[in-house]
Amino acid sequence: MSSFTTARASSAPDRVPRFHDVEDAARRIAGTVRRTPVLTNDAIDRQCRGGVHFKCENLQRGGSFKLRGATNAVSHLREMPNVTGVLTHSSGNHAAALAIAAAAHDLPAWVVMPSDAAPSKIRAVLDHGAQLTTCAPDFAAREEVAAALLAETGAAFVDSHDDPWVIAGQATAALELALEVADLEIVLVPVGGGGLIAGTVIALSQLAPRCEVIGCEPAGADDAFRSLAEGRRITEFVPRTIADGLRTPLGMMTFEIMRRHVRRVLRVEESDIQEAMRTVWERLKLVIEPSSAVAVAPLLDGAIDISGRRVGVILSGGNVGIPG
Amino acid sequence: MSSFTTARASSAPDRVPRFHDVEDAARRIAGTVRRTPVLTNDAIDRQCRGGVHFKCENLQRGGSFKLRGATNAVSHLREMPNVTGVLTHSSGNHAAALAIAAAAHDLPAWVVMPSDAAPSKIRAVLDHGAQLTTCAPDFAAREEVAAALLAETGAAFVDSHDDPWVIAGQATAALELALEVADLEIVLVPVGGGGLIAGTVIALSQLAPRCEVIGCEPAGADDAFRSLAEGRRITEFVPRTIADGLRTPLGMMTFEIMRRHVRRVLRVEESDIQEAMRTVWERLKLVIEPSSAVAVAPLLDGAIDISGRRVGVILSGGNVGIPG
Repeated sequence: MSSFTTARASSAPDRVPRFHDVEDAARRIAGTVRRTPVLTNDAIDRQCRGGVHFKCENLQRGGSFKLRGATNAVSHLREMPNVTGVLTHSSGNHAAALAIAAAAHDLPAWVVMPSDAAPSKIRAVLDHGAQLTTCAPDFAAREEVAAALLAETGAAFVDSHDDPWVIAGQATAALELALEVADLEIVLVPVGGGGLIAGTVIALSQLAPRCEVIGCEPAGADDAFRSLAEGRRITEFVPRTIADGLRTPLGMMTFEIMRRHVRRVLRVEESDIQEAMRTVWERLKLVIEPSSAVAVAPLLDGAIDISGRRVGVILSGGNVGIPG
Repeated sequence: MSSFTTARASSAPDRVPRFHDVEDAARRIAGTVRRTPVLTNDAIDRQCRGGVHFKCENLQRGGSFKLRGATNAVSHLREMPNVTGVLTHSSGNHAAALAIAAAAHDLPAWVVMPSDAAPSKIRAVLDHGAQLTTCAPDFAAREEVAAALLAETGAAFVDSHDDPWVIAGQATAALELALEVADLEIVLVPVGGGGLIAGTVIALSQLAPRCEVIGCEPAGADDAFRSLAEGRRITEFVPRTIADGLRTPLGMMTFEIMRRHVRRVLRVEESDIQEAMRTVWERLKLVIEPSSAVAVAPLLDGAIDISGRRVGVILSGGNVGIPG
């Protein structure tokens, strides 16, 4: 496991971010990251008998919230005299986000992606001038190739979720939501590596301290649910879900933040994920990826009762192939 | 044709709206109509070598810009002592828009729809408490049934496009766009009955007087192109297009406004409409209906050159079935 540790060691300081880090992140990312709209829908509100506010990170540049964390991390690294570039490995949205963030800060970026990554995601990385190295489609190969490239290039590693700068950056989505919608009582967030939900609880701890932040994950990748139940981080599991962004185990830091602040993680069946994705397309006119739909499904399938309550949902991304 | 004239005679005064009518409409609709976001996309801008600003009326309540005109008309009618309800016939977005607007103003609404109207559109009308009468699926039957209902109910008729209050309401989409994006040089607008483009030229005549407003219509329903070329309104044609919102002939008032202010109407092939719809779904993560895609296609298929220019596109609606 030594290469694992090497290639995941973040370049950021090893401390949990606080609210002022989120405010700092909001300032740092302002020029690169879009302030995404918050939408509501009459039909969904009638169905749930509550008020649901969708924070549309699927409309973010790069198609997901990941640009927030990547941009904050790159902004910090850009100020360090010895940083000559950034590097990550990812099969998904974080790779494209780091490419965009690095290009915006005029830093070279190296990205290691598995050879079976989605062509659209590979194209997004290349479009923004990142240097792509492909590897065998397993996690060990990604770690190994990334570790070798780190040694060779001297680039700074930016983890997709277990990094305080990344967490503080992701927190800005909830920050914007809470500044736009007062008195939120419940916020639903999809959980993969945990960067988004960790950031969300930090942002809302100040702006909506009575708000409950509820994690949502596929029943076929319920490591966060089980990790919280057992009080230890579960990293060995085989995810079985169409929600490709939520197959990642929790990080050490994100798990620590979750165990302190998150009381509930809801598990969503695959059929409910697909149904929620469809409902959002039809009602909200938004293309969302399955990982986003995981945080919508509990509202529609009756898993939680939100009658008369003000609810936020972070629609995390929209990078999905179009059927038909 | 007498029933035609009867059932289309708008309840509004017969004069072309001016810019102050648009400002008035903006105030009247504020509580009911959503200020929709304006989105940009890096990949589309690179492809066009210009800056394209998409005004997202697909994210409007009811799923289209039609709520703007319907709400403005209902707001005026609500102030008239002898108006006890509103009525229209429509197979599409205007029907649902009038139902929402009437409910918001606590007026009863009657809607005549053909028996083959899309179930989702029928549901939208019923959801908002409008009284639905179905009729045979041809235009003559719609006119006839609407005329009979008008006589019976004493309701005020609200035409879908050839009504100055409706036109002034639709104009608020371009008003918001121009207030958010300065120095627009070109705005692309889909053309069906002509209410949206007529409103757009009135709004931009004050806010962006040098901006060219270009109409976009399906090659299979190019009555606006031919009407402008021949200098007379063409109403007899058989539309052949998937853009169901653009099959309507121009109105008398909308034609007069277009012939004075619109220099170019672009005709778009069906395959380019489908391709543009797909590109918007994939890149912008937005569900748009074919009628909206008609105003996007000219940017992607090279029909117009926008290198280095600031362009607006009104994405008119998102009411379309999801494939797959």
